[in-house]
Amino acid sequence: MSIEEQVAGLYEVLHRRRDTRREFTGAPIPPDALHRVLTAAHAAPSVGLSQPWDFILVRDGTTRRAFRDHVHAERSMFNAQLDPERAEVFSRIKVEGILESSLGVVVTYDPDRGSPAVLGRHAIADAGLYSVCLAIQNLWLAATAEGLGVGWVSFYREDVLRRLLHIPAGLRPVAWLCVGPVAGLPDQPDLERAGWRNRIPVEDVVHHERYRERSSR
Amino acid sequence: MSIEEQVAGLYEVLHRRRDTRREFTGAPIPPDALHRVLTAAHAAPSVGLSQPWDFILVRDGTTRRAFRDHVHAERSMFNAQLDPERAEVFSRIKVEGILESSLGVVVTYDPDRGSPAVLGRHAIADAGLYSVCLAIQNLWLAATAEGLGVGWVSFYREDVLRRLLHIPAGLRPVAWLCVGPVAGLPDQPDLERAGWRNRIPVEDVVHHERYRERSSR
Repeated sequence: MSIEEQVAGLYEVLHRRRDTRREFTGAPIPPDALHRVLTAAHAAPSVGLSQPWDFILVRDGTTRRAFRDHVHAERSMFNAQLDPERAEVFSRIKVEGILESSLGVVVTYDPDRGSPAVLGRHAIADAGLYSVCLAIQNLWLAATAEGLGVGWVSFYREDVLRRLLHIPAGLRPVAWLCVGPVAGLPDQPDLERAGWRNRIPVEDVVHHERYRERSSR
Repeated sequence: MSIEEQVAGLYEVLHRRRDTRREFTGAPIPPDALHRVLTAAHAAPSVGLSQPWDFILVRDGTTRRAFRDHVHAERSMFNAQLDPERAEVFSRIKVEGILESSLGVVVTYDPDRGSPAVLGRHAIADAGLYSVCLAIQNLWLAATAEGLGVGWVSFYREDVLRRLLHIPAGLRPVAWLCVGPVAGLPDQPDLERAGWRNRIPVEDVVHHERYRERSSR
């Protein structure tokens, strides 16, 4: 494969990637593909090479139903904060595909990995948390390339998820990712399609030499 | 390009990616490539489609030297925490390529973007910060595909960087990325080569159904 093809292929995957809720088929994930996806996540950069992530693969239906019920309760909590017009838009938005997807992947952050002196973290405590997110994006892109959808669920309380999966108190759950084969990926983000919020032009987020103020959106 | 080639190309880029300090040539970045890389970053998923990131492109030598001096001071601060054996290993490690790279890209987080009701952030305040990191990993992979190196510098105080680039008080700097053409990328992470820390097997970070305790490392 030429360099040009490799570059084109990466951009194709990167722009095709979507946050998936509706399109899961529930079909099993080929074990080889899952292994490649997890290996991709684990190949992410990390502060001080701490590799502070863990991936808990959740297939059990009872666990998933318990989590889904909690997410639905949190969805109602958020809904109660909205004015009627936003609530109407929100009512059309699906926020999770926990049971429809084939697998839950819970990603956690372990601040003790590589401690006491994590190189590059003494001034910025959150740098370890940032590393975990880089791994998540690797996972997301690899899954997209493999024909799998990924949906990040964030309507939950960290303590509830910690208790549900026996995650030690010192660790922090960062994401519940719904993962699995999909019928397809939509061209537009769900939230844009539903009229919740639009994508903004890239020019609006690029600055030169220093931050320039502009009207917030 | 077949799906198989696209998948192979993505994994090649993803595993070739390195955190770069030594290999920058200082050659200019082709404007088209830079635009594609920033567009890739901006195509990342974000909580509630908030797109809470900004990218400040820093070319000015005076600004870069001021930041480099601050980073060196922070390097000394970290060094002072180490025992003699670790300090010896650390002395061989380069932590930044601020002046050698072609461009500094400072990535910030704006919690007000899309507020007041950011969908998916009511229970997890840091979800917006997580989105910014996903954009950084998109940027990193796109740059790698384009033949550019990226080095994340985290030896700095957020307030110092905020003042240097006139970043408003409500925003949070998340990264200074050194970006530019490189002579090549090493096979091994710098920290592994230097004997600071090794990569751990992926099997060690994968759990099934719930978190299993194991000896920390």
